Amino acid sequence: MKKNVLIIGAGGVAQVVAHKCAQNADLLGDIHIASRTEAKCEAILASVREKGAHKTDGALTAHAVDATDSKAVAALIEKTGAQIVINVASAFVNMHVLEACIETGVAYIDTAIHEEPDKICETPPWYANYEWKRRDRCAEKGVTAILGAGFDPGVVNAYARFAIDEYMDEVKSIDIVDINAGSHGKYFATNFDPEINFREFTGTVYAWQNGEWTSNEMFEVGRDWDLPVVGTQRAYMSGHDEVHSLAANYPNADVRFWMGFGEHYINVFTVLKNIGLLSEQPVKLAEGQEVVPLKVVKACLPDPSSLAPDYTGKTCIGDLVKGTKGGEEVEVFVYNVADHKEAYEEVGSQGISYTAGVPPVAAAMLIATGEWDAREMRNVEEMDPKPFLKVLGQIGLGTWVRKGGTDEKLY
Amino acid sequence: MKKNVLIIGAGGVAQVVAHKCAQNADLLGDIHIASRTEAKCEAILASVREKGAHKTDGALTAHAVDATDSKAVAALIEKTGAQIVINVASAFVNMHVLEACIETGVAYIDTAIHEEPDKICETPPWYANYEWKRRDRCAEKGVTAILGAGFDPGVVNAYARFAIDEYMDEVKSIDIVDINAGSHGKYFATNFDPEINFREFTGTVYAWQNGEWTSNEMFEVGRDWDLPVVGTQRAYMSGHDEVHSLAANYPNADVRFWMGFGEHYINVFTVLKNIGLLSEQPVKLAEGQEVVPLKVVKACLPDPSSLAPDYTGKTCIGDLVKGTKGGEEVEVFVYNVADHKEAYEEVGSQGISYTAGVPPVAAAMLIATGEWDAREMRNVEEMDPKPFLKVLGQIGLGTWVRKGGTDEKLY
Repeated sequence: MKKNVLIIGAGGVAQVVAHKCAQNADLLGDIHIASRTEAKCEAILASVREKGAHKTDGALTAHAVDATDSKAVAALIEKTGAQIVINVASAFVNMHVLEACIETGVAYIDTAIHEEPDKICETPPWYANYEWKRRDRCAEKGVTAILGAGFDPGVVNAYARFAIDEYMDEVKSIDIVDINAGSHGKYFATNFDPEINFREFTGTVYAWQNGEWTSNEMFEVGRDWDLPVVGTQRAYMSGHDEVHSLAANYPNADVRFWMGFGEHYINVFTVLKNIGLLSEQPVKLAEGQEVVPLKVVKACLPDPSSLAPDYTGKTCIGDLVKGTKGGEEVEVFVYNVADHKEAYEEVGSQGISYTAGVPPVAAAMLIATGEWDAREMRNVEEMDPKPFLKVLGQIGLGTWVRKGGTDEKLY
Repeated sequence: MKKNVLIIGAGGVAQVVAHKCAQNADLLGDIHIASRTEAKCEAILASVREKGAHKTDGALTAHAVDATDSKAVAALIEKTGAQIVINVASAFVNMHVLEACIETGVAYIDTAIHEEPDKICETPPWYANYEWKRRDRCAEKGVTAILGAGFDPGVVNAYARFAIDEYMDEVKSIDIVDINAGSHGKYFATNFDPEINFREFTGTVYAWQNGEWTSNEMFEVGRDWDLPVVGTQRAYMSGHDEVHSLAANYPNADVRFWMGFGEHYINVFTVLKNIGLLSEQPVKLAEGQEVVPLKVVKACLPDPSSLAPDYTGKTCIGDLVKGTKGGEEVEVFVYNVADHKEAYEEVGSQGISYTAGVPPVAAAMLIATGEWDAREMRNVEEMDPKPFLKVLGQIGLGTWVRKGGTDEKLY
């Protein structure tokens, strides 16, 4: 059954979501997109039309909305007749948009954990601070809410569940590795909103190890990974959303997240952080003006969506999952490889936006078919991973597994 | 004859000026200090009283003034009966303060070239853009205006003139070398106002070579210098005020300025500059606020005056002057070595502020004695250097010369 979609947000990921929804409008129905700046939504829809991506003659309409205003979002849901909201706006608005979905009884999908602008790195598990407090209300109202359904978190949660279900009796560790071996040609840029990007690395690095939360500093724990396609890459243990739900669902496994960084990135990050320029707390200028330094850094850096045209190279994101099967040690690496240039040619966005934007559309398609219409709040690993990986393979993100030194395409 | 002094500014250099004026109040008379924030002036005077530095029972008084308002400065000059204004406020106010001195007919001393907030690195010679346009008016009114009378510019201009007068018939080159081999123990800090400090290095590097202005990028031309006390240090050709007057006064000599930088400073500077954080042009934040990035960097960095208590090590600033005498090649290095800790113990400021703040007081003392009361506008090398170097030696900044491998104290 067709389900109309309302996309919230108008950044690089929203552009991918809009293209993918349009390509699959035969399943999804009317497509609406809303953000603070309607012109940004219009630009995205123009790009969809330009690529001839829209498969039906259903609505393809832009709106302005302040997504921190739940009532305004609820009114827009009513007005558009949306049945699924794909929220890919700033993580600061997540709970406001979820409230609007609970209020109006429609499905909710996001790709990142909620954050409050003035708080960095709250106590683990992070989902318990905002999302899981709304579990009961989602269940009472029969609202399907799929949390963290981007690539990481999202697809990597499904990879973990798939690897465990498919290859082992018992899981011992889940190591998620995210490598962007692409090049944007700029002196420095973040691949998505700098305000969110840097916040990931300015707080404590939480991991779940030996049945408890452990904490480290960013760039304290590094490891070289030998990976398919991208080769040997150095990645550092980082805090990340999916660690916080996977640890709850697989408490006997060690759960860690590793993000790849080059020396140049680390140097720039270290300089900015040590000077205090990544702070979300306002400073007072000599002239009296109050300013949040991180917002100024954001304004100085290239807009992540501007990187797409010249981005080349590949990403490799996957899960190294270790456990036992019939008493034997078993180890698999389930992964995807994406190409920046191919992403740009298809949807006008770079590979990081592509890997983040395709999965929530796959989730929406599974809600529309009923396969993922859980009528309660779920993290991705709490859903059957197979239909998800199958749809992902169909709409642009293949799944491979490396096992015993051999790489095999699964979906 | 005693001459009352009005100090404009309340930063680290102003603190040194206030202490040194107080120590020499038997020659200088009443001492007044004014800045936008009167409390900062009061704090400086409290430090003067605490050290028991004030030699007389003359006035030692703080005032509030907006130094960009010439009329307000003129009114304060009239009110205080000041006969010499020592301007060590931001370089942005210089011409406003000079106008007030011309208006009221009192002597003017500054330590840096005038700058307009929205312009970086104007066309050479820099003094011709603002200061020298007021030469005729100073002469008409009989106003003594000593430009750039800090250490560099200032003492190094006197060193150049002294070296040429004393040791050669003809000058071929003047290389000014400024090395701070001290350590403040912070991750990163500038030794004076970051807004002015960084502006020195974001523009074109002008030098006067082979009878014309040459231009380079910052950090493009580096050279190792073997110097007294501080040893071998790497310094980079930089734009600096004194090059612009020395080139006019010694057009047949090559005139260059070299500033010492460690790799860490260059790295931080390069990151901030390449990202655009050293820009004086406002950027617009996502929320609509307009902000000058450089002012945010300034707000994040330590206040230069806060570095003083923990600053250790020495500075070495001098002029390598080459020429001929009786047909023979001759080469001398005239220099000063200052110690951060000694400066702090004497006047509560670090060595960079000390070397910048003592010279304008020496100049004021020479105006009071009449030796430097030129009744027109002068750059420091246009004044007799000997009485200046003599007073400097008496009040805290000795002069040495290295010639033929031997170091000798001159003053």
